[in-house]
Amino acid sequence: MAIAHIGHAELQVSDLEASREFFTEALGLFVTEESDDSVYLRAWQDWDHHTLVLTRARESGLGHVAWRVQSAEDLKQHERELKALGVDVEWLEGSTGHGDSLRFGSPSAGVPVELYWEVERFQCVDPTLSSRLPSHPQRFTGKGIAPRRFDHTNFLVDDVRAEQEWFSDVLGIRHNYYVVGADETRLGSWLAKTNVSHEIAFMRNRNQDGNRLHHVAYFLDSPDQLVRAATLLVDGGYRLEWGPGSHGTSGAIFLYAFEPSGHRVEVWTGGFLLFAPDWEALRWDGSAAPLGLELWGSELPETYLTYGTPLVAAGARASLV
Amino acid sequence: MAIAHIGHAELQVSDLEASREFFTEALGLFVTEESDDSVYLRAWQDWDHHTLVLTRARESGLGHVAWRVQSAEDLKQHERELKALGVDVEWLEGSTGHGDSLRFGSPSAGVPVELYWEVERFQCVDPTLSSRLPSHPQRFTGKGIAPRRFDHTNFLVDDVRAEQEWFSDVLGIRHNYYVVGADETRLGSWLAKTNVSHEIAFMRNRNQDGNRLHHVAYFLDSPDQLVRAATLLVDGGYRLEWGPGSHGTSGAIFLYAFEPSGHRVEVWTGGFLLFAPDWEALRWDGSAAPLGLELWGSELPETYLTYGTPLVAAGARASLV
Amino acid sequence: MAIAHIGHAELQVSDLEASREFFTEALGLFVTEESDDSVYLRAWQDWDHHTLVLTRARESGLGHVAWRVQSAEDLKQHERELKALGVDVEWLEGSTGHGDSLRFGSPSAGVPVELYWEVERFQCVDPTLSSRLPSHPQRFTGKGIAPRRFDHTNFLVDDVRAEQEWFSDVLGIRHNYYVVGADETRLGSWLAKTNVSHEIAFMRNRNQDGNRLHHVAYFLDSPDQLVRAATLLVDGGYRLEWGPGSHGTSGAIFLYAFEPSGHRVEVWTGGFLLFAPDWEALRWDGSAAPLGLELWGSELPETYLTYGTPLVAAGARASLV
Amino acid sequence: MAIAHIGHAELQVSDLEASREFFTEALGLFVTEESDDSVYLRAWQDWDHHTLVLTRARESGLGHVAWRVQSAEDLKQHERELKALGVDVEWLEGSTGHGDSLRFGSPSAGVPVELYWEVERFQCVDPTLSSRLPSHPQRFTGKGIAPRRFDHTNFLVDDVRAEQEWFSDVLGIRHNYYVVGADETRLGSWLAKTNVSHEIAFMRNRNQDGNRLHHVAYFLDSPDQLVRAATLLVDGGYRLEWGPGSHGTSGAIFLYAFEPSGHRVEVWTGGFLLFAPDWEALRWDGSAAPLGLELWGSELPETYLTYGTPLVAAGARASLV
Repeated sequence: MAIAHIGHAELQVSDLEASREFFTEALGLFVTEESDDSVYLRAWQDWDHHTLVLTRARESGLGHVAWRVQSAEDLKQHERELKALGVDVEWLEGSTGHGDSLRFGSPSAGVPVELYWEVERFQCVDPTLSSRLPSHPQRFTGKGIAPRRFDHTNFLVDDVRAEQEWFSDVLGIRHNYYVVGADETRLGSWLAKTNVSHEIAFMRNRNQDGNRLHHVAYFLDSPDQLVRAATLLVDGGYRLEWGPGSHGTSGAIFLYAFEPSGHRVEVWTGGFLLFAPDWEALRWDGSAAPLGLELWGSELPETYLTYGTPLVAAGARASLV
Repeated sequence: MAIAHIGHAELQVSDLEASREFFTEALGLFVTEESDDSVYLRAWQDWDHHTLVLTRARESGLGHVAWRVQSAEDLKQHERELKALGVDVEWLEGSTGHGDSLRFGSPSAGVPVELYWEVERFQCVDPTLSSRLPSHPQRFTGKGIAPRRFDHTNFLVDDVRAEQEWFSDVLGIRHNYYVVGADETRLGSWLAKTNVSHEIAFMRNRNQDGNRLHHVAYFLDSPDQLVRAATLLVDGGYRLEWGPGSHGTSGAIFLYAFEPSGHRVEVWTGGFLLFAPDWEALRWDGSAAPLGLELWGSELPETYLTYGTPLVAAGARASLV
Repeated sequence: MAIAHIGHAELQVSDLEASREFFTEALGLFVTEESDDSVYLRAWQDWDHHTLVLTRARESGLGHVAWRVQSAEDLKQHERELKALGVDVEWLEGSTGHGDSLRFGSPSAGVPVELYWEVERFQCVDPTLSSRLPSHPQRFTGKGIAPRRFDHTNFLVDDVRAEQEWFSDVLGIRHNYYVVGADETRLGSWLAKTNVSHEIAFMRNRNQDGNRLHHVAYFLDSPDQLVRAATLLVDGGYRLEWGPGSHGTSGAIFLYAFEPSGHRVEVWTGGFLLFAPDWEALRWDGSAAPLGLELWGSELPETYLTYGTPLVAAGARASLV
Repeated sequence: MAIAHIGHAELQVSDLEASREFFTEALGLFVTEESDDSVYLRAWQDWDHHTLVLTRARESGLGHVAWRVQSAEDLKQHERELKALGVDVEWLEGSTGHGDSLRFGSPSAGVPVELYWEVERFQCVDPTLSSRLPSHPQRFTGKGIAPRRFDHTNFLVDDVRAEQEWFSDVLGIRHNYYVVGADETRLGSWLAKTNVSHEIAFMRNRNQDGNRLHHVAYFLDSPDQLVRAATLLVDGGYRLEWGPGSHGTSGAIFLYAFEPSGHRVEVWTGGFLLFAPDWEALRWDGSAAPLGLELWGSELPETYLTYGTPLVAAGARASLV
């Protein structure tokens, strides 16, 4: 029973055309495949068929967040264990870009999770985008923000601790660092299965009015590219929410913006990798806690702690317009 | 009658030891010469004896801001013209690091200005700091923030327009860009004699309670160095006021912090150079005005529009403790 | 009699379509205006109508390098002085993008020079490229290498010293630094009228077989953008000649590539600004000389000291195919 | 039986004082502990007691390269398996900074390997270096090149394939990418247990005269820091061997220099992370092979393929002067 890494996210979007424009032209992702109602996207060095799916829907929301497991057997083992815990699981036969998958919602927050094993590697069929370099699944064109790869997802939840513990205990995702408030309330937790600082995070919904997608994130190579991204977005008419700033927790430099269907998108760079097999989650509390969120001291926008896009119930499908 | 470029600033500091520590260890300037009550500093590629003087004083304030003229004759010509305009001028004989200088206060805001012609070039006498490179007046050590050179000074004044016009009309400093408020109130003006975006700037004191030094600024080579600077300062226990952010006006990336005696210090990078001999000042108004101050949209701290350190009256000397 | 700054260069190109593709898609310049045989280009923050002209020609070569003067009267004064010195001058009436101009060849190397006063400012008429920011003559799109502005031109000549002295003495372009060989042979000289480290440079043709254009250069904001440029060019199938490397002379980080018609193009970043009105040219000799050319020690390609594109005789026009 | 990650390397150095100066002042590592004959060093964000040991010796060489395993039981399991394969193993009781370790040489090249489980976390006891940030095991001071963390080691061996296969098959280190020559000779292989592009690499010794340490490497956050590193080293009088350049294989930006005792040291940045549990090693051959070594085309120094420092036989101890 072992998860390998986070693989992709599906965003249901209320304005597919505008969102497609944002993700391809401003962010600089590439379309692997698309239909009238779905667009499959990846960053230039993402190796798989896609790392983001946009699905046309009446209302924006997170369709699902998908993790690849380490073997076909791991997938079955996860099914057995989840059923034993009383979790409703559902099998999906062969999706675009990957094989059969197991779908379920996390018990506390209802995060719609997908596990899969078989995956289709991206093959560049457009000769104007093919590269001589085996390390480049496609040519680096520098178009838009041009992130290197998909990185993580983040959720706003009512009960951070319950969510973190379930992902760590049941799915085996390592707890890397967390922030606690004055009364020991868990304000945020960051987790990863791989060596990155986090592949999934949970932050406390200040309004305590439900669980939501906070953001999806793509990775940049340098602070300089992040600064370039900020100017590109502003001069392109998009709205930044916060940043450039630095999360003290991971040491990453961040930038948050809203895409046209209302999802928050992050690009970030830097941050540490964690290698210790016996890593103990770092605790941020007291006067260090605010530095964890923003090392340089810029004001946290109110929306950052309250706004997110809905989680589509596991099992539900996009309600097309 | 012609000014060449801004040369240096003198900061009177209430805590000389702590300020010296900030400017040498955190900012990474180098001491050319010092006495019990004065420290002469320069950035690693500043060519002259110093670009900053710290003077021990009971209260912090700007001692003077100095400009080099284009010839000995220009200095005398400036004296004649200033006297003709009724400005009180005073001659100082041979200061440390430069020759005789002319001192006066600007009529509207009382900015203490110094003009000088003769200057002592920096000579590296410390063998551990000397460089094989003729382009390096000293070795690049990377210590602290390590700015390349002194850049500009900025003042908070009650009447921006009056100050700008006097500097442009009488001293011949080109007006490069300005921001106006809803009722045509001039909110800020940026001026330079050289090709940089500004060597001196005036911003409106929102409290309208007098004229002050807003900040002195040093120049970095890249956004990446600025990001490094932010983390260095925070982890070193210093307080950032604002940034990293981007002034839309100049395109520069900025960072503001307070040094221990209370002066605001900026490090910045990027920004444009202006070459047109008939440049017409760019006007920022309406919805563009806020982007002029912060392109990326971070919150302007209240202190930024109200806090500064006093201007020491031209003619006055540091009152030592 | 005063020159203001370098303004633009005209490249005659043997393959206009391929060169246009390189300069617009790979370098990321923008077309202001074009005809069957000419393309007028500028970087995103160039304020004038164009900073580069591509002209269809049988053979590639430098058409001319143009400098703006400080006033209409300066233009006439230059004419008088050049004639007094026996230089053949020619008047061109109203070119695309600027007013009447004076054309002549430099006496020693035959560098085809143009002086002009009246200039057409760039006006963005494409709504998809217009910016809300008065400091952005057009929107920053990040397309291609995306340099901020035109920077300088460099020539390979048989007699560096003669050329430098004529530009300094007759045109008033300040000599900033130079390299000399073992026998005092002048190997290179870098000059500027503005505060940049150089607007024009002359390097010794090792083969001593004539005078040529060495390269035209555009400016980037950071080392990181230069590194991105190198990967963009290689992955786009273009050939790098040299770099990233660092010229010790100016402290700049450089990258040289060849465009499809055979001209060498540089993008660079960093480097110092010079403000002293009495600057004395820095001398690089002995063991420092190689560091002047490449601080980090990478091998100088043989072509760098021998290859250039021809100088079109002043007065000659592009010979169309 | 599972290795967790590479942990540290021991360099025997012929000039301990000069090497200590290089690693602390130029590279910017920090001393955790030292004696007359040993110096224990780490980068500012290395979490363990040390990632590099300098040991005084008559001749420079690699003492050992150490890997941490995933549990105490894994250590014993590795012992059993190595013995079963006929590999001579030796137990060392409690070293400085970590617990009991297993030492052996790789069969083909004699790479001196150490495996350990128990480890001492770094505790900052110097108040001038302690940080308020739980994510900073010590304060970020920016001194010297200031890498974030230890990254990898690289060996020059006579038989790359044999070495790679043994490390993959016996130690379970994943093969990520390799270069082959015209006749299918394996020219280099890069391997990792974690998600980084490589923790250990083997390159073919062109002279086929034995196996050596090629280099140890530390990680920087950005291309800009790498460029800063190059200038710092040159201006500090150290000798660069190669770079800044870009390994097409990993996409990393690299810089190689020699420390005073003759070891090659790399600093690098960028590069990809690999997440696929079924990753198949990328093959670089034909015209792509040279781009794998240097994407931007700079000349490979002859020393790069032939020079290394000796491997100290497993079981041998430093021969002190």
